[in-house]
Amino acid sequence: MMDNNLYLKQMSIDVEKARQSASFRIQDMNKLLLNNSYDANQKAKKIAESEPVFDKFPMHFKNRAEQLAHSLKMAKRLIELEEEHHLSQQEFSALVLYVDMLNPLSLHYSAFMSVIQAQGTPEQIKKWYDPAKRLAIIGCYAQTELSHGSNVAGLKTVALFDEKTDEFIIHTPDLTAAKWWIGGLGVVSTHAVVQAQLVIANKSYGPHLFIVPIRSPIDHKPLPGITVGDIGPKAYGGFATMDNGFAIFDHVRIPRDNMLMKFAQVTREGKYVAPVHDKLSYGGMVKLRVDIFADAGLKLAKAATITTRYCTVRRQFGPNLETPVIEYSSVQHRLMPLISIAYGIYITSKDLYGQFEALTKQLEIGEAQSLPEVHATSCALKSWGTRRSTDGIEECRKAMGGHGYSIFSGVADMFATFVPSNTYEGDNYVLSQQVARFLLKQLASQKQVYSTAAYVKEDVKLLPIKSHEQLLDPNVQLALFKARSARLVRQLAQQLQAGLSWSEASVECWDINFAHAEYLVVHSMIQKAQQAKSTPLGDVLKRLTDLFCLHYLATSATFLATSTVSPLELVTIKQAYHQAVLSIAKDAIPLTDAFGFSDRQLNSALGRYDGRAYEALWEAVQKNPINHDEAQRAQLTKLVFDILHRRDNLNYIQAAKL
Amino acid sequence: MMDNNLYLKQMSIDVEKARQSASFRIQDMNKLLLNNSYDANQKAKKIAESEPVFDKFPMHFKNRAEQLAHSLKMAKRLIELEEEHHLSQQEFSALVLYVDMLNPLSLHYSAFMSVIQAQGTPEQIKKWYDPAKRLAIIGCYAQTELSHGSNVAGLKTVALFDEKTDEFIIHTPDLTAAKWWIGGLGVVSTHAVVQAQLVIANKSYGPHLFIVPIRSPIDHKPLPGITVGDIGPKAYGGFATMDNGFAIFDHVRIPRDNMLMKFAQVTREGKYVAPVHDKLSYGGMVKLRVDIFADAGLKLAKAATITTRYCTVRRQFGPNLETPVIEYSSVQHRLMPLISIAYGIYITSKDLYGQFEALTKQLEIGEAQSLPEVHATSCALKSWGTRRSTDGIEECRKAMGGHGYSIFSGVADMFATFVPSNTYEGDNYVLSQQVARFLLKQLASQKQVYSTAAYVKEDVKLLPIKSHEQLLDPNVQLALFKARSARLVRQLAQQLQAGLSWSEASVECWDINFAHAEYLVVHSMIQKAQQAKSTPLGDVLKRLTDLFCLHYLATSATFLATSTVSPLELVTIKQAYHQAVLSIAKDAIPLTDAFGFSDRQLNSALGRYDGRAYEALWEAVQKNPINHDEAQRAQLTKLVFDILHRRDNLNYIQAAKL
Ligand SMILES: Cc1cc2nc3c(=O)[nH]c(=O)nc-3n(C[C@H](O)[C@H](O)[C@H](O)COP(=O)(O)OP(=O)(O)OC[C@H]3O[C@@H](n4cnc5c(N)ncnc54)[C@H](O)[C@@H]3O)c2cc1C
Ligand SMILES: Cc1cc2nc3c(=O)[nH]c(=O)nc-3n(C[C@H](O)[C@H](O)[C@H](O)COP(=O)(O)OP(=O)(O)OC[C@H]3O[C@@H](n4cnc5c(N)ncnc54)[C@H](O)[C@@H]3O)c2cc1C
Repeated sequence: MMDNNLYLKQMSIDVEKARQSASFRIQDMNKLLLNNSYDANQKAKKIAESEPVFDKFPMHFKNRAEQLAHSLKMAKRLIELEEEHHLSQQEFSALVLYVDMLNPLSLHYSAFMSVIQAQGTPEQIKKWYDPAKRLAIIGCYAQTELSHGSNVAGLKTVALFDEKTDEFIIHTPDLTAAKWWIGGLGVVSTHAVVQAQLVIANKSYGPHLFIVPIRSPIDHKPLPGITVGDIGPKAYGGFATMDNGFAIFDHVRIPRDNMLMKFAQVTREGKYVAPVHDKLSYGGMVKLRVDIFADAGLKLAKAATITTRYCTVRRQFGPNLETPVIEYSSVQHRLMPLISIAYGIYITSKDLYGQFEALTKQLEIGEAQSLPEVHATSCALKSWGTRRSTDGIEECRKAMGGHGYSIFSGVADMFATFVPSNTYEGDNYVLSQQVARFLLKQLASQKQVYSTAAYVKEDVKLLPIKSHEQLLDPNVQLALFKARSARLVRQLAQQLQAGLSWSEASVECWDINFAHAEYLVVHSMIQKAQQAKSTPLGDVLKRLTDLFCLHYLATSATFLATSTVSPLELVTIKQAYHQAVLSIAKDAIPLTDAFGFSDRQLNSALGRYDGRAYEALWEAVQKNPINHDEAQRAQLTKLVFDILHRRDNLNYIQAAKL
Repeated sequence: MMDNNLYLKQMSIDVEKARQSASFRIQDMNKLLLNNSYDANQKAKKIAESEPVFDKFPMHFKNRAEQLAHSLKMAKRLIELEEEHHLSQQEFSALVLYVDMLNPLSLHYSAFMSVIQAQGTPEQIKKWYDPAKRLAIIGCYAQTELSHGSNVAGLKTVALFDEKTDEFIIHTPDLTAAKWWIGGLGVVSTHAVVQAQLVIANKSYGPHLFIVPIRSPIDHKPLPGITVGDIGPKAYGGFATMDNGFAIFDHVRIPRDNMLMKFAQVTREGKYVAPVHDKLSYGGMVKLRVDIFADAGLKLAKAATITTRYCTVRRQFGPNLETPVIEYSSVQHRLMPLISIAYGIYITSKDLYGQFEALTKQLEIGEAQSLPEVHATSCALKSWGTRRSTDGIEECRKAMGGHGYSIFSGVADMFATFVPSNTYEGDNYVLSQQVARFLLKQLASQKQVYSTAAYVKEDVKLLPIKSHEQLLDPNVQLALFKARSARLVRQLAQQLQAGLSWSEASVECWDINFAHAEYLVVHSMIQKAQQAKSTPLGDVLKRLTDLFCLHYLATSATFLATSTVSPLELVTIKQAYHQAVLSIAKDAIPLTDAFGFSDRQLNSALGRYDGRAYEALWEAVQKNPINHDEAQRAQLTKLVFDILHRRDNLNYIQAAKL
């Protein structure tokens, strides 16, 4: 029964065949995608593949507390490996990316430590950053409250300066001001950077940052005046390995010195010293959004890899062995654009990191001229990328039919844990307003504008689209994406002039955000394809770019609505789109192989490298405790008997010989 | 601290105010929506509200086995209540809908029993239906296999007739033929209706249905030759209360009489008697899809109710108490159309039930002329409705910002468990091809065509849209929705004539399915609004219909792509759309109240009737076991110490007084 029959063998043959017919070298593409982190990635992978605690499969059967426990073990092993292998920061990051699972220490690194580094004085860095680095304290970033998230200015926690004792009194005035959602706070953190309204002598100076001890690092008990706990399970079982928490402060006293004072200061006498360049502290927020955008590419790439492999081996309908479902046009039109989007995000995020590094250098010398542009770009790409990625992951799951709904598909977990990226680090709808505002400002500006937004003032020439070839011309592609976005921005400017209020304009901002982000991605992809033109990867990068462009040209209503494209042109566009889909479909397996994920990283029965999805599903199911655990079985069987043997049913069953 | 402060009180004031300003009577609308099931609903609600086991809140903290156990208790209580209160079938259905939670017996009723009733001979019904009704046996419907779902003809389980013993031998030839996904099979069922290839004397007659005993109803042990178990957790923690299972048959013998023989028969001598009207057995499948469509409305209505209430009390940004987020234009444009869609589904599903009942009467007298139409309508509405509903539920969740991602929002569970409705009872993409085929057939037909599809041949007159008023004319609305769908169908017909293969047409089928379904809903909504014209509900029903129409006219690319609407007309449409959104926003609270869900049914901290979301979140979090369970805490704290007190950290902490 369980022997490797014809059908099972065929599955390996199917993926191998698709691999063999690649139009490019998979490893070359992997190097291009990983860029300068290729070596770090290889090293991290080698270390991680043999670590038992990084195997995510057992997580499927764990309850919340067990999942948290497992992730703490992962966190510890990460720290040990960093030491054992003397990992550089890049290698450690690569290792964390390999594991790709949140743990209660994730924000200790990405938020707590980096905020101290960015906003602490040298003495404060020494005092807090060093112990944080050796994990003698574990911290979190406590901004959001029960009733305030997006509107940071509205936070209600207060930090009242007490000149007598040279202390701040951190206090939660009412339930709605309870800190909420804080990652790492629920169970683990010993310290928090708390965002609170600074009050000196009855005068409020707005939100500032304070280091507040939460639990004793010695016995881990909550400190006096602090009520703290975990806010409970999250949607879709996501974020289960993170202990998002709440905290209420009842007149908690901290030394004055615990306010992060690199920019603003409070003196011993209670004098408030305003920051010189308050925008200089924004760099950290930009970095988080850049990371999220890159992560959107990683997650979508994983989902696309799994789905491409499964749809290659899944056969349904048709003659003989039946047709692999990846050959159906609707499956291709759902899946191939997602592969091009994942590539687009990888490529664009490299550019964005570059811009961020340039900005960091500026900020270091006290300048900030490119901050508005990098801020707008990171907002636009974060909101566009997280939405496209999470929609795309769920579309991948659906594209796998019934088995896509099994936890063993490996795709649902990614959606579950990544979908809140639409909300945190700036709700996407709120961010889109900042993007639109930036573009409107460029449009209105008399001076030279930022290069990424120059197109809003450009007089873009559009020739009628008559041929397929025209649509593959990078200049035509760029012009179309520029024109659409520019027209949307100008339309909104007109509407505002005609009296539309800003709060009524938020739907328009959303469209503008997407149009601008897609222009940015097209721009990066075209550049990358042109750089690689004479290399063996040039051709396929060009085809990916074409598909990305044609997908949006053919499906996005805003091209038609702005008359950037006419219904007649759409006929040509759709034909070209269809060709582009087919052209990528031929390379779908190699293109997803090129992301370079191991089976262990994917943790998917359906997305196995060798294509043997059915055997993997079977093996996974055998480990299901419901099928084995005697106590669970006994309890369930008893409940079944409560129904089956109700009243005189047992007699009835025996008499009727059922 | 925890006292009812100003901000908390304001939340109740906010929802109450919105309720007071309703433009219609909420209870009247509830009666209209529930139609002839209103009384049954009231009775069910009264019974259910005080049943402790129907409280879903504790489910949030249970593991898989505990969730299954709880749902078995619910199932038992449902049976008891049916007896105790002598519930009619309609009342029992209303009770099941009130509980709105799957249990391992759900398919016993909806699939196992109904298939026996529909396809069994009178003797078979007596033999199997009667014990099933008293729960002396519990059954499931086993069609799908590891490698076959959509393509039923390709199933590989065989039922080999053994003339010697007058038995069938049920056999799984290889792993890929294992039954898979079967709801109720994993842990609970004693019997299954198994779909298997009938083979007599080496000749195959295609899939037929067989009743196969799986576990002894006496000791609940699997019967000889049967390997059976639960297929494991599902995506997003959905379907956790259902024991979807697998089964492998090793030459399992059943009497010949266990084949359901109302239509096809196998005689004692092994002669196959083909069914006279094989289509007569399709009625059951139609019913399941009709139910799913109605359920899509129910689920979306719940999500919209929760989100409307929370967004009314959630304030963020703006002066004084800050602005309720429901007043932001993007929130309104995301939420109000979903309310109109939920109404659209409620109204249309009533019509669909009517068509189904008429069909049932036809089938009873051996006729089937309206089957193709009801089949196409149910396919179109099922795929459109499940997709719009599940996309809408997740949009509701996102619209609630951070707290939407808490499990206590109550919205995520609905998405998690309802999203596979896109896949089961016919994968939506596969169904859309049947819809398109039906419409193409009508287009090509020389005879009179079905009334729901008559428009494909109609010469629809479209006048240029110049004014807002025009867009509110039901005739104009209908014409636009007819024209778009007809044009898509005709385009596809042309492409097929020009050589496009059917498998390449599946993207077009998807668009056609959506256009046709939206036409059907517009048609039903317009009719309903006109019927109610002179009643107090007429006005708001008209406004809901307008919003439904304008939402798709303004946002769906296919109106522009087919030139049904021009970019210039779009400007007018968008203005009218904006007005329609505002007009429904004013009634959003009463419109969602009118769905009539109790707090217990919604099981949501954010969607409480009294608006007190923050207090409810706080109470929910206090019940989180991670905050209390001593054993869990101790284990987690130990793991924290493994990190915090690594090496000489404890000394360091003490020395540094951290
Ligand atoms: C998984 C997760 C982890 C988190 N981790 C942390 C953490 O570690 N530390 C921390 O401090 N916080 C954390 N947060 C909180 C997070 O930063 C906020 O939830 C997020 O910023 C969104 O804010 P909000 O919840 O106030 O949404 P709201 O602003 O209340 O959004 C509600 C709705 O209103 C809309 N809206 C709001 N304002 C406007 C406007 N002006 N115009 C139009 N529409 C508007 C939104 O689009 C949304 O639809 C976390 C949240 C989540 C979900
Ligand atoms: C929660 C759940 C409960 C279930 N309960 C039961 C049950 O109780 N009993 C039972 O028998 N079954 C059950 N099923 C199985 C279910 O009926 C099937 O999964 C469903 O019919 C989809 O079929 P599939 O899995 O073969 O998908 P596939 O057909 O393999 O779909 C895979 C992909 O191929 C695409 N595709 C397939 N064919 C075509 C085509 N011709 N053209 C274009 N695209 C195509 C699909 O759109 C999809 O993207 C259940 C499934 C789920 C998820």
